[in-house]
Parts: sequence; C-alpha cells; structure tokens
Amino acid sequence: MKEEIPVEELVLSANEQVAVENQQTLDQRRVLAINLMASPGAGKTSLILATARHLPPNVRPAVIEGDVASRLDADTIEAAGLPVIQVNTMGGCHLDALMVRSALAHLPLEKVNLLFVENVGNLICPVDFPLGTHLNVAVASVPEGPDKPYKYPGIFTKVDAVVLNKADVMDVFDFDVDYFRRGITMLNPNAPLFILSCKTGQGVQAWVRWLLAKWEEHFPPR
Amino acid sequence: MKEEIPVEELVLSANEQVAVENQQTLDQRRVLAINLMASPGAGKTSLILATARHLPPNVRPAVIEGDVASRLDADTIEAAGLPVIQVNTMGGCHLDALMVRSALAHLPLEKVNLLFVENVGNLICPVDFPLGTHLNVAVASVPEGPDKPYKYPGIFTKVDAVVLNKADVMDVFDFDVDYFRRGITMLNPNAPLFILSCKTGQGVQAWVRWLLAKWEEHFPPR
Repeated sequence: MKEEIPVEELVLSANEQVAVENQQTLDQRRVLAINLMASPGAGKTSLILATARHLPPNVRPAVIEGDVASRLDADTIEAAGLPVIQVNTMGGCHLDALMVRSALAHLPLEKVNLLFVENVGNLICPVDFPLGTHLNVAVASVPEGPDKPYKYPGIFTKVDAVVLNKADVMDVFDFDVDYFRRGITMLNPNAPLFILSCKTGQGVQAWVRWLLAKWEEHFPPR
Repeated sequence: MKEEIPVEELVLSANEQVAVENQQTLDQRRVLAINLMASPGAGKTSLILATARHLPPNVRPAVIEGDVASRLDADTIEAAGLPVIQVNTMGGCHLDALMVRSALAHLPLEKVNLLFVENVGNLICPVDFPLGTHLNVAVASVPEGPDKPYKYPGIFTKVDAVVLNKADVMDVFDFDVDYFRRGITMLNPNAPLFILSCKTGQGVQAWVRWLLAKWEEHFPPR
C-alpha cells in the first residue's frame, strides 16, 4: 500500500498542472468552458444541443465529447453543425486534463465563445479530475430519481450548478422535487438548480442566461 | 509508469483471490449470488424488490447494498423484510471482493438461497472487480436511451444477462428496442435480455424463472 499513495499524488498534481494550463489557453481566447458531468443517459448531449439552439447568434459553441467508446455523440453534435472533437478513453471512467489539452489543439478556439466538455457518463470518478474548465456542472435527470444528491454527494458538493433534465416526465415518475432540492441545498447551498427539459425546451432559457452571465463575469469588456 | 503496472496487478489478483473464497463460502451454503451493475437510478433496488415479490415462498433472498454514501437503499430493502447489509464505499466507485467478504460475515447465509449484491451505480468501474458472485447482470433502463451497449461496451460484454427496466415508459421515450438488442447481441450473443418493468411487474416472471433455473444448475439436488 505504501507505494500506491505517492503514485496517485503524482498523477493528480500533474493533472492539476495541465488543467491550469488548459484554463490559460481558454482565457487567452476568451472561451468559457463547462465540464458537464452526469450518469449515463441523463442527457448531456441533449443539453448541449438545446443550449446551442437557445444561444444568441453571436455566441458560438464548440464541444469536446468524452466517451468510453464510440463516436455516436460526436456525430450527433456534428450533425447539428457545431465544431466537435471526440475523445475516447478506451475504458477509462473519466476525462483528464491531458485529454482535454489534446482536444483543444484541434478546435478552432479563435472562432468559439463557449466550450462544452461532455465527460464520461459517471457520477463518481470525473469529480476528482479537474480539466481546466471554468465551470463544473452536474446534470441529473428525473427518471434517475430524487435521491441522487444523498447517494452521490461528492459531485453535488463540488459543482457550480446543477441541471435537472427531463422535467417533462416529472409526473410520469412522481418525482419529489423538494426532496431533490433539499439534498442539493444541504451539500452546496450556493449552487443554482436549473429544472428543464431538453426535449420541450422548458427552462432552457434560464440556464442559458446564467451561462451568458458567467461568460461576462469571466471576460469583462476589454 | 514502470512501477504502476505491478501494483495494479497485485490489487487485481488479491481481489480475485478473495472473490474465489467468497464463492466457496456461498457454495457451501448453497446460496446463488448475483452482482447487479447499472447506472445510477436504473432501478437496481427496485429490481431486487420486484424479484423478491415474485419468488416462490421457499426461496429466501438477502441483499448486500453498495453505495458511495447513505443507507437509503438498505432502509428500503429492510422495510420490505429482507436481510440486508449496507456497504458504503466512502467515495469509491465500485464494490470489491473484500467488502463483500465483510458483508457475508454478517448475513444469515444458512437461511438464504439467493443473494443480490447491488453494486455502486456506475457502468464502468465495477466490471473489473469480480466479487465472487455466480452471476453478473447489467441493468439498463429505458430513459437512459438505447445506445448504452455501444457507448459502454465493457459491461455488456462481460455479463451473464441484461435486464432492461422501466419498460412501461418505452412509448414516452420512443425507445428503439431493436437498436438496443442489436448492441447487446453484437457484444454478447449468449446473454439473455429481460425487458421488464419493476413498477408494473410486466416481464419480471421470466427473469425470476431464469434466476431459479440458474440456482438449480449451480446446486443440483444432493
């Protein structure tokens, strides 16, 4: 056991160093980056597409797609006309800062204002690997049930905002939104909660307004 | 990098050794154990409860509940009258064989025929850590979408069966069941697929019959 601890520390701090450099690269281009973390199937790709549809025409998004395998999500994003780079982790359970650095080198950052980094579908492992994004966001979804903040507290503690997707099926699943909200408030009282449906578009506008306000906060007029 | 590889090998083989011992313990008691793996909120706990409701009265189930945090699921199982041990991984992204060994010591195995081991909600990490269960089962759910076998092939390749839960909302989500089934068949042609709804009970009987047949296969009359 003795030998494992320094190895992990080394990996984490190397990751953190690269994350800092990633953020510098993004800052130079005035690109605000958002790390989207969620369970498989919560709707990260759908959130990116719904957000893109609600952005003002002068705000140009791009996407880094993280997946264990396949380029299904990248194809979906590309079909919507957004610049996208697929990163396959080949079995790995999270993105890391080096993967994001490699992807950044292939994106036309000079033409981009918002960068969505879609992490691997996993509520646990991605939390410990900062990527250099300005914002970390957890995407939960109604069918998963309202107990996720209580059962996976790590992610909900560390994010800047929580999105609850698939709000259009709240009645079908008899979802207890107060219980869900209390769980988040208990762990992270300052994180805003955006309840929305990527399918119907309800609630997407408020999330987009928050993103744009964050952009202005990070990149005030020069 | 040179030093990391032997460390991982050591950890894996120690886990595998304990897994073998766990299965011996279970075999002595004629307890068939099933490792349930799924995304968060796919319905692992609901599947255990629905299965228990459909078992013949002479078949007695017990449960090991794996969670990052909380004992919500154990409380739910206990309320249904089943023997249950909660294991908290304290942030860990999967159960391991040692955790199961500790839990086994606290269960009344002499009064049990089926043991459900509910793994941490995660489609990636649990796959690499055998627990000593006789069966490994992936639980997917309709709202997650039909692309999971393509995006998380590791788990679907390695399991003995796949359960697709929340079949009652298939129309709501316009779920492409043929695409899902093709993904599984491509990776694992011999794994049966059970399409069911823990909420309505539809399809649960076929899954229970398969489990009981597996019990008889492993423990023929003495």
